[in-house]
Amino acid sequence: MLDYDLSSRGSLSRFEYLYRRIRDDIASGTLAADEKLPSKRQLSRQWGVSLITVESALGQLVAEGYLIAKERRGYYVASLGKLPSPTARPLPEHVPGTFREQLQIDTSRLPVQPDAGALALWERSLRGVLAGEDLDEAFSALTPQGLPRLQADIAHLVAHTRGMQVDPGQIVVGAGAQVLYQLVAELLGADAVCAVEDPGFPRIAKTYEAAGRRAVPCRLDGEGIRMEDLEASGATIVHVMPSHQFPTGRVTSIARRYELLGWASEDPARLIVEDDYDCEFRLAGHPIPSLASIDAEGKTIYIGTFSKSLGPVVRAAYAVLPPAVAARFQERLSFAAGTLGVIDQLALARMLEDGSYESHVARYRRQVKERRDLLMGELASALGESATFEEADSGLHMVLALSLSEAWQGREREAEERLVAAARKEGVGLAALSSYARLPISRDGHARFVLQYERLSEGDIRRFARIIGELAEKEL
Amino acid sequence: MLDYDLSSRGSLSRFEYLYRRIRDDIASGTLAADEKLPSKRQLSRQWGVSLITVESALGQLVAEGYLIAKERRGYYVASLGKLPSPTARPLPEHVPGTFREQLQIDTSRLPVQPDAGALALWERSLRGVLAGEDLDEAFSALTPQGLPRLQADIAHLVAHTRGMQVDPGQIVVGAGAQVLYQLVAELLGADAVCAVEDPGFPRIAKTYEAAGRRAVPCRLDGEGIRMEDLEASGATIVHVMPSHQFPTGRVTSIARRYELLGWASEDPARLIVEDDYDCEFRLAGHPIPSLASIDAEGKTIYIGTFSKSLGPVVRAAYAVLPPAVAARFQERLSFAAGTLGVIDQLALARMLEDGSYESHVARYRRQVKERRDLLMGELASALGESATFEEADSGLHMVLALSLSEAWQGREREAEERLVAAARKEGVGLAALSSYARLPISRDGHARFVLQYERLSEGDIRRFARIIGELAEKEL
Repeated sequence: MLDYDLSSRGSLSRFEYLYRRIRDDIASGTLAADEKLPSKRQLSRQWGVSLITVESALGQLVAEGYLIAKERRGYYVASLGKLPSPTARPLPEHVPGTFREQLQIDTSRLPVQPDAGALALWERSLRGVLAGEDLDEAFSALTPQGLPRLQADIAHLVAHTRGMQVDPGQIVVGAGAQVLYQLVAELLGADAVCAVEDPGFPRIAKTYEAAGRRAVPCRLDGEGIRMEDLEASGATIVHVMPSHQFPTGRVTSIARRYELLGWASEDPARLIVEDDYDCEFRLAGHPIPSLASIDAEGKTIYIGTFSKSLGPVVRAAYAVLPPAVAARFQERLSFAAGTLGVIDQLALARMLEDGSYESHVARYRRQVKERRDLLMGELASALGESATFEEADSGLHMVLALSLSEAWQGREREAEERLVAAARKEGVGLAALSSYARLPISRDGHARFVLQYERLSEGDIRRFARIIGELAEKEL
Repeated sequence: MLDYDLSSRGSLSRFEYLYRRIRDDIASGTLAADEKLPSKRQLSRQWGVSLITVESALGQLVAEGYLIAKERRGYYVASLGKLPSPTARPLPEHVPGTFREQLQIDTSRLPVQPDAGALALWERSLRGVLAGEDLDEAFSALTPQGLPRLQADIAHLVAHTRGMQVDPGQIVVGAGAQVLYQLVAELLGADAVCAVEDPGFPRIAKTYEAAGRRAVPCRLDGEGIRMEDLEASGATIVHVMPSHQFPTGRVTSIARRYELLGWASEDPARLIVEDDYDCEFRLAGHPIPSLASIDAEGKTIYIGTFSKSLGPVVRAAYAVLPPAVAARFQERLSFAAGTLGVIDQLALARMLEDGSYESHVARYRRQVKERRDLLMGELASALGESATFEEADSGLHMVLALSLSEAWQGREREAEERLVAAARKEGVGLAALSSYARLPISRDGHARFVLQYERLSEGDIRRFARIIGELAEKEL
């Protein structure tokens, strides 16, 4: 028993060799359960190693449960039950490392490459933090909702741009809007229902559903989410994008906003989530005031994000919680805030304070507007009278409506699918508006597509318009 | 109607003044629903402003839903229904900006201040990224699970330190372990049950419950989670900390590890979550091999974190998913990975590649061990024979057991609460082991406390031991 030949240990240390041999002998049953081992001194002599090495090896096996140490009586083999016979671990199946499709022009999904200006801004701000901030002080000041300095900067931002007068303590930061969606999902009781816009941003319903909550799609009309659908849904939370709905681009009318506030005030449990994901990018006129800014009863959770202006350089978003919600939520707030590092928070604070964020947004807005104008012009020449553009001013995407010939009336969905498939063959990503809907959408003889153009180059835009023009003529 | 005097507009722009006046007149009913406005040219003359200013103001009000533009017919006042009378928005209640208690010595919660070495390491690595990395290339390579380069570095790390042979594609990164807990919670069907260790880390059960899943506490014995409790729980997922359980510090025995794997293999739906939150900090002997490294059937989701070694400088953690789980999960993976910015991922990759992370961990482990040795020595002299230390070698916390006098037998919980309250009055945070338990725990005449000592200074440790010694004598 235990007659190991240490000269055959190869490159293993004495400890490692003895540890493995004993472990394997216990696992294979060569050393039987409850067997008592010789004393440490005997083993030290037998193996020709120091007492410390013996103690280390046996101690490790005790820690792992292969041996049991009984006080003043020595070491015993543990009873392991029937162990599976040792087998080589099978190689894992291949898990693809990347799922991003290799499309060259893609208006059907958010861009992966950052805007060069956003990247330069972020790098400069991070360098500033590393060179100039007192990090110890920042860590000391940290709260479960974020850095007080960043909270104050965001309070100033929403006052300045969205007409909201809020206490910095109402703000909680997190690593992207989806972390905040999750925070909201958890506000709801397990049986509660969340009403979502349909068509809508797919991740919203999915986040509520993944959190075990029921999401009920509600149709839209020209003024926003339909109140009769909302009333029928049984929801206690409604998640809307009043400034610029995705994907339709529609702006919720002021009348519908007050109807939503009225709906919320009927029941203390009801809340509105205002998802203001691209409010900074209205391309004509002035920003639409936020729903939260006209809410006198504290029923609106406002979610803003830096994803449109800075993403994917940094993942950062914030929620403005009504005071009563903040109080209910204390325990969960540190989860959200804990996802955004202190250094990232300081870098955001710096760019909000020195005005460089505002300049970046203004420059980026101009650039996006130029791209949109070019895209509209190119598509208008390529498609002629059949093309109209819906909600082209409200933000970073718009809807292309193609009026269809007699032959396609009643088969609009089919026409959309045909064009999407044909485009895909050309390496062009195109998304039908209807692909964002769970409910049937009413039809009017048009095929509709959502165009997210913010990061397309001039060349991409021209090529895109030419291809779509050719395909529309050939396929429809 | 609309007879506004622009000379009284103060500092407002012409646009802003006209926009506000018309908006307020519509909201108050001065301009009645369905009323037709004069033509833009008439208004331009009447107000003495340019046609463009009139168009901007009316356009904005159309966008917001106060006015309706009818093609070739002009502007009409929208029907808003009954609006609430305009009231000044009440000031929000005060929401406290910080909830952190002002304790001077706190062994009852995780530290907020970073280790100076960790902060210096992170700053250096971030600077390296900003100076030396091709960020465009990094963004191009990004996958929904993280940066392939970081995945490969982590695969190498777990092979080297935890004996796990994994494909980099099995790894997903996220902004902290809790984001990954949430990912796991969402694996479960809405009615599924998760078994958790009791006593345990409170956030684990809370995360499952917040996600609408049922968490069932299971008692521990000397070898780990009790199998009879697990069998009775009806759980499909068991969340364990086999290398170093929090708060008891216990190591799951090898026999119990195989029992857990056996339990998982009985049902295709069953999975084990191995939460290896401080595996790098075993203070004596060698690291315990991971449960995942002996799992031949792909039933174990392994969660590792950089929070113990780097936190709170950066929030970063990773999961190693069995291939079948990774495949089931594709859609949700981008949520987790999307919480950790590309620059942070690059900074982590650099420190893993150049060896500076490993040196930091080795240095930090030595420092923690010195603190632990000092704390044990000081407490032993202050408390004498009544103090014993449990699981002092397994990681970054240990359990202090105080043997109680006759008078306190059967009232151990009361004794613990008394000492915790007395310590709090002295500015000392102390946590009873039982405060981490939902189920009653068996008693043996000892009061037990969890000591998290990793960031205490030498002075704090001496003061802490002196105060606890005095209070134990006085109170117990």
